[in-house]
Amino acid sequence: MSEFTNVSVLKKANCYFDGGVTSRTIRFPDGSKKTLGIMQPGDYEFTTHDREIMEILEGDLDVLLPDAADWVQVQGGESFEVPAQATFSIRVRALTDYCCSFLS
Amino acid sequence: MSEFTNVSVLKKANCYFDGGVTSRTIRFPDGSKKTLGIMQPGDYEFTTHDREIMEILEGDLDVLLPDAADWVQVQGGESFEVPAQATFSIRVRALTDYCCSFLS
Repeated sequence: MSEFTNVSVLKKANCYFDGGVTSRTIRFPDGSKKTLGIMQPGDYEFTTHDREIMEILEGDLDVLLPDAADWVQVQGGESFEVPAQATFSIRVRALTDYCCSFLS
Repeated sequence: MSEFTNVSVLKKANCYFDGGVTSRTIRFPDGSKKTLGIMQPGDYEFTTHDREIMEILEGDLDVLLPDAADWVQVQGGESFEVPAQATFSIRVRALTDYCCSFLS
């Protein structure tokens, strides 16, 4: 799906890490939420609230998932899932365009 | 208005200047279009197609409008308008969150 239809978009951006990571919040008619975001090259640590699916639309990064021993490379067209209330780390090598789906 | 409702959002980001400027395209039921974007600190030159209203949601920049002699400071809560098919320059001092409305 290249376009989300019949949705609401919060006007104001979410900004983290001095703008290293920014996103827009999209609300769907069923009450679910996604964010569409950009990560600049850099190292970031995130903590989830809900379970998340991170779909990498374009870019190149390594992710260290919770309880994982090794970093895994993720590129445009690939996804990874993070459990709720977990901490994970990302090393962005190239500007990354992503879609994050929050699952409850 | 803090939220746009009943709109479509293109999933893929628009990326310019190596990610210095990124935005998401929002389509409205009346056929009009806006982009919600982020500008990292830096110097940028843009050329418009349609007339545009740039609403600065948060940030700090200077703009040199077409045919203007002087740079003008624009901060969060302020807007400026650019005619169609014109070139203008922006110097972003602090991470800037904006909403660009395209007028035909």
